[in-house]
Amino acid sequence: MDRDDWHSPVSTLADGSILIRGYPIAELIEHLAFSEAVYLVLRGEVPSRAEATLFDACLCAILDYAMGPAPYAARVVASANPQLVPALAAGVLAQGAYAASPQDAGEFIAGALEKWRSQGRGVEDVATAVVDEVVREGRRIPGFGRPSNHEPDERAAALERVMRSSGKWGEASELYTAIHRRWLERTGKKLVINVDGMLAVALTELGFRPLEMGGVAALSFLPGIIANAVEEIISGVKIRQIPGLRYTGPKKRHLDDRRG
Amino acid sequence: MDRDDWHSPVSTLADGSILIRGYPIAELIEHLAFSEAVYLVLRGEVPSRAEATLFDACLCAILDYAMGPAPYAARVVASANPQLVPALAAGVLAQGAYAASPQDAGEFIAGALEKWRSQGRGVEDVATAVVDEVVREGRRIPGFGRPSNHEPDERAAALERVMRSSGKWGEASELYTAIHRRWLERTGKKLVINVDGMLAVALTELGFRPLEMGGVAALSFLPGIIANAVEEIISGVKIRQIPGLRYTGPKKRHLDDRRG
Amino acid sequence: MDRDDWHSPVSTLADGSILIRGYPIAELIEHLAFSEAVYLVLRGEVPSRAEATLFDACLCAILDYAMGPAPYAARVVASANPQLVPALAAGVLAQGAYAASPQDAGEFIAGALEKWRSQGRGVEDVATAVVDEVVREGRRIPGFGRPSNHEPDERAAALERVMRSSGKWGEASELYTAIHRRWLERTGKKLVINVDGMLAVALTELGFRPLEMGGVAALSFLPGIIANAVEEIISGVKIRQIPGLRYTGPKKRHLDDRRG
Amino acid sequence: MDRDDWHSPVSTLADGSILIRGYPIAELIEHLAFSEAVYLVLRGEVPSRAEATLFDACLCAILDYAMGPAPYAARVVASANPQLVPALAAGVLAQGAYAASPQDAGEFIAGALEKWRSQGRGVEDVATAVVDEVVREGRRIPGFGRPSNHEPDERAAALERVMRSSGKWGEASELYTAIHRRWLERTGKKLVINVDGMLAVALTELGFRPLEMGGVAALSFLPGIIANAVEEIISGVKIRQIPGLRYTGPKKRHLDDRRG
Repeated sequence: MDRDDWHSPVSTLADGSILIRGYPIAELIEHLAFSEAVYLVLRGEVPSRAEATLFDACLCAILDYAMGPAPYAARVVASANPQLVPALAAGVLAQGAYAASPQDAGEFIAGALEKWRSQGRGVEDVATAVVDEVVREGRRIPGFGRPSNHEPDERAAALERVMRSSGKWGEASELYTAIHRRWLERTGKKLVINVDGMLAVALTELGFRPLEMGGVAALSFLPGIIANAVEEIISGVKIRQIPGLRYTGPKKRHLDDRRG
Repeated sequence: MDRDDWHSPVSTLADGSILIRGYPIAELIEHLAFSEAVYLVLRGEVPSRAEATLFDACLCAILDYAMGPAPYAARVVASANPQLVPALAAGVLAQGAYAASPQDAGEFIAGALEKWRSQGRGVEDVATAVVDEVVREGRRIPGFGRPSNHEPDERAAALERVMRSSGKWGEASELYTAIHRRWLERTGKKLVINVDGMLAVALTELGFRPLEMGGVAALSFLPGIIANAVEEIISGVKIRQIPGLRYTGPKKRHLDDRRG
Repeated sequence: MDRDDWHSPVSTLADGSILIRGYPIAELIEHLAFSEAVYLVLRGEVPSRAEATLFDACLCAILDYAMGPAPYAARVVASANPQLVPALAAGVLAQGAYAASPQDAGEFIAGALEKWRSQGRGVEDVATAVVDEVVREGRRIPGFGRPSNHEPDERAAALERVMRSSGKWGEASELYTAIHRRWLERTGKKLVINVDGMLAVALTELGFRPLEMGGVAALSFLPGIIANAVEEIISGVKIRQIPGLRYTGPKKRHLDDRRG
Repeated sequence: MDRDDWHSPVSTLADGSILIRGYPIAELIEHLAFSEAVYLVLRGEVPSRAEATLFDACLCAILDYAMGPAPYAARVVASANPQLVPALAAGVLAQGAYAASPQDAGEFIAGALEKWRSQGRGVEDVATAVVDEVVREGRRIPGFGRPSNHEPDERAAALERVMRSSGKWGEASELYTAIHRRWLERTGKKLVINVDGMLAVALTELGFRPLEMGGVAALSFLPGIIANAVEEIISGVKIRQIPGLRYTGPKKRHLDDRRG
């Protein structure tokens, strides 16, 4: 695509009215839930009732986590620059390889589904083949494991219940959980499916591309960042510094005057 | 507040379970719409049905605007650094004095309401006093006027309809619209109430503080930023440059060798 | 200015060569110090020897401060998203009203200089008039005071020595220090001139506009942010959380099933 | 490393004085050029005269490029949020895979040097082995090629001249250019060494780690971002929108009222 060619399928102005994926925005304001409008903006169509129910569950999957890095960074920034927007941006940046990145699991699931579809074997056979390959290559499976313990992840479990009750437990769900079972047997490890893994399953069932899953995580992450940034600004704390910081550099020394 | 004293009312870990404003997160995932969960995170309580309806309308008020600065900046960043998170952060930063800042109108409304409550006069008298003061001091009223035209703002109109139908058209709404009518009479100008102004009215009726209104705008802004950033990354366009850029600096010239 | 009219005086491409303020970039790479090139990019001309000496001192004025908010935020972000660029951006955002903002003092100085030039009185008279006005209006003077103590600021003192030795101690310096002396007498307070204040004086003497001073501070801030972000990424620490965080929200409670 | 263990070798406060890598900051302000201070902050020691000369050249290697994505994004952000700091952060984010990332070439060079040192063969033999492997695996070599043409890169050429004249043309330089020659012969392509490639060579000769190279690029990038952000804010342009934007979404359509 040419770098001077700008086009977007998301929205336009027509006769003085904003159309979002074709719909006048006033209709969305009056008749859609926010989660339905987000789904429309990202996926291009208004969700069915079952899709909307599951998508609401996905958007509620993160929210806040006793001040993990995202609200933490937002508060530190706000303590020097007491404005909302820079603090929110700093919080958004604290999302990546170690936190809230369902897109990695989403890409893994997309690859496994493609293998299933191209090979025509049963789900257990495909799961075995996938696990064999992962173990042989010494790779980890995105979405397995929690930093601190081996208990089931309450958020993953809740997402699974909503998938089942809304009739959206489908092929991606069957395949990823079969891979998980097979991987536990094969490796003897005890890692559970974490919230990133199950969020990737649910969003795959809803048709989201892996890259878009990071966007859903960013939306789900934002409320806790906002609430903490507001608290910090209102508290008036100035200049947070790192508690218990140790200095590991050289002892005091002096320059010879190198300039003159 | 002490800079080493960290505390938050938003969430905690208790017995291995995440509590959001006291509620186990699994219950929120299974039973709340995203807009209800956002309201809970920001305001501390689950909204009533009427509050949830109006808050959904508020969250749908921006969404996307034929690629205004926020998705525009996100796309430019993604064309050099094709990753989602930096592009989203750049988009979030494009929110301020000239775009999507209901908090300015929110502060104006809070000041006018305080005047009303402290003075005990009728709404029209307060509106007159407020307009007199604004005109005398040569200030503008945040939330009046649209960049390009004098047509009613379809988004403001839709928000007003939802406020009225959900029974949330209250004191802030009466006062701000009275100020608008009085200001039109007094100045002879034709500026309409824009989406920032009516969003500030609606969020005031819901009990939001001005600073939190910027957070709601950031959430409403984010879906269009995500959709555009994803499109840009998938398109593979590299290195957007400014079309039609004119150079206004000096003609070609040379340094004497100043170093040696 | 029209929103479709893009122009820049900074650089252009001419005959396949990049011109920076008119100079071929290869000449700058071969013959200028970085501080001279920065001065050229920002101010449009190559600095004299004395200007370059003072500008070097200005750029060295911040560097790092035992991990203040900027490197702190960068490290927190890197602990979740172990990449350099997002961490640097988070650090840059931690610059504002409470940290590294010489532009506020720069605007104050510009206003005081204008008063001096328009009134034609002696420096002591102008300083007295400025302090009278500030005290009467209950305002603070940007650049006075340090968070933790009343000792002279070693950075401000070093900047003053370089200004004097490079022959750049001029009208802004005389006026701002006269205002400081007068303000101490008038209020009986003991606040010293801090680094932001003296940096604003030095940059005013060099012809910088207040807005540009924030850019110089951002450059001076960045080395410490980079060094700390690199350390954090290489350390491999995952998911920094706030130490000693207290939860101040409600006790555990349950939703009635509000959805169905 | 423990997530509660915070330590830094960069700076500390001792007896009320800021020490940067052991040196009192006042000495740096009075006696070091900014490039020397940056080198000290990042590498831990004051550079020699030759190191400082080459490091100045590295820091001057980018500066501005007829408004590439970084200043472009900064201007778009400033047109909605007319403040310096958010605009600078947006510009910093526009640095990555497609722009100003010497760290990729830095990692490639580190790998090739390790192969050379571990194998004890001549530089031409190592270059041949590296190119064989790259071609066999279908990979590209970071730092080769320019977006628009096959002319030598003037910035790479200037960096090479400074390396040679300062006596810093060493093993990394020999090896990377040998790989380039061998790769041209082997593939018949005409890609030149670009500025990212030669910057990685120069910074490798100075002892920088690949991750730190991205930080040097960020510093070199920042002056152009600052200058453009200041111009944009002062111009007062509001709300940049994408010129010539085409809408590729669905035609106007209507919701059935899905809520009631």
